Amino acid sequence: MTERSEAAQTVDAFHRGRFFLVQPAAGGHRAGMDAMMLAASVPSAFTGRLADFGAGAGAAGLAVLSRCAGAEAVLVERSPEMMAFAEATLAHPGNAALHGRASILEADVTLTGRARVAAGLADNAFDFAIMNPPFNAGADRATPDALKRAAHVMEDDLFERWVRSAAAVVKPRGGLAVIARPEQLAELVAAVSGRFGGIEIVAIHPRADAAAIRIVLRAWRGSRAKLTLKPPLVLHQTGSDLFSTHADAITNGLASLFGD
Amino acid sequence: MTERSEAAQTVDAFHRGRFFLVQPAAGGHRAGMDAMMLAASVPSAFTGRLADFGAGAGAAGLAVLSRCAGAEAVLVERSPEMMAFAEATLAHPGNAALHGRASILEADVTLTGRARVAAGLADNAFDFAIMNPPFNAGADRATPDALKRAAHVMEDDLFERWVRSAAAVVKPRGGLAVIARPEQLAELVAAVSGRFGGIEIVAIHPRADAAAIRIVLRAWRGSRAKLTLKPPLVLHQTGSDLFSTHADAITNGLASLFGD
Repeated sequence: MTERSEAAQTVDAFHRGRFFLVQPAAGGHRAGMDAMMLAASVPSAFTGRLADFGAGAGAAGLAVLSRCAGAEAVLVERSPEMMAFAEATLAHPGNAALHGRASILEADVTLTGRARVAAGLADNAFDFAIMNPPFNAGADRATPDALKRAAHVMEDDLFERWVRSAAAVVKPRGGLAVIARPEQLAELVAAVSGRFGGIEIVAIHPRADAAAIRIVLRAWRGSRAKLTLKPPLVLHQTGSDLFSTHADAITNGLASLFGD
Repeated sequence: MTERSEAAQTVDAFHRGRFFLVQPAAGGHRAGMDAMMLAASVPSAFTGRLADFGAGAGAAGLAVLSRCAGAEAVLVERSPEMMAFAEATLAHPGNAALHGRASILEADVTLTGRARVAAGLADNAFDFAIMNPPFNAGADRATPDALKRAAHVMEDDLFERWVRSAAAVVKPRGGLAVIARPEQLAELVAAVSGRFGGIEIVAIHPRADAAAIRIVLRAWRGSRAKLTLKPPLVLHQTGSDLFSTHADAITNGLASLFGD
């Protein structure tokens, strides 16, 4: 962080000022709604250890800590530069109330077997894993910034490799949540099936009459329940640019996306 | 039909009396909302030949003819007993306006290659295929009636085999629509992917706060568009047992499920 100028970073308030994120001002992956909706997939009564895979500056993990008082979070990130932002985030005075329940682990979540364990991701070590994988398809857009590209561009079999690791580190009865694009639905469900059960999906629509822009999938180790499509989240009420009351509660840490 | 007593069949009005269905009173698969929602997936401006796979007494195929004046339908059914109901349906005086655009083909849609062609399902012979496969999982319920069981109980790889045949008989640029249960989402998308593109899915929820009970998938031969999750259909308005205005229009042949 010392090598970056003040102008290269921003400090942004989330959950109506209940926590703050230090993140790159321009390049890199800037956290926002996706991280908040992912974090909202964790039940409000959740207690235990949570892994935030590909945590970036820590937005989703901190959002879980902000809503779930009995949670601890390990922010797992492989990019040293983004890790530095996560460290700056935890050191920010506005996060003093959450700081003691968060830690940072530099690790590539796609490692397997002993290499994954050696990197600090032991089997059955977590009660929940959340992930916001770099899900923009490579051909979708040209991203000139290398850091931004690393965070956004999907590699082959990314869901398969990320979910495989999540299934290893999450305990029996533990949970998984993933945010993705609708077109990745089949690939994501295929990666999760057989490793987690009781898949629940919430589609996120910008407006009631528009196609979904994101899906959030949640599933549980050892569950044999069938896949369900939960009521969708509609962000904006018809004729308004403001968030609906429900969407506002979810993105501000006042409600769970799955109603629990 | 001559071997069945009068009491063994019913005549039910659909689309507010614009067509009628002769179907078994108790045993067998009685058509209803699923067939109407499947039929509603065909664009209102559709013209050409439509195949109704597993047509039963003809509910979905006739519902397409009722809404799409330029459509012709081939009702494909392998059960001789259900075929007899389809014949009685087409002979019913209340269907005189549609009768000339419908025909019946006794064939097993899971046949392949030359056997499928020999059964009357030639390659590239249709502009659209719709299917309401027997999608209740075998373990779900005990169905004492053999005819009902044949219509309802899902065999292994059923989507794969039905969609494979649909891909053979539908022309380039032609369409496919399938109604299924939410838990069959991944299996269905896997069967369709690579054969049809531009997958669109509408989830059908009984109420705004309830999980989906059905999905309707539509896709197109040769399309390279990505999968989209369309706005869901909510059948009942909050606090009412009546259908919403939109759901009522869709199930009565006055609107397309996909807004076209």
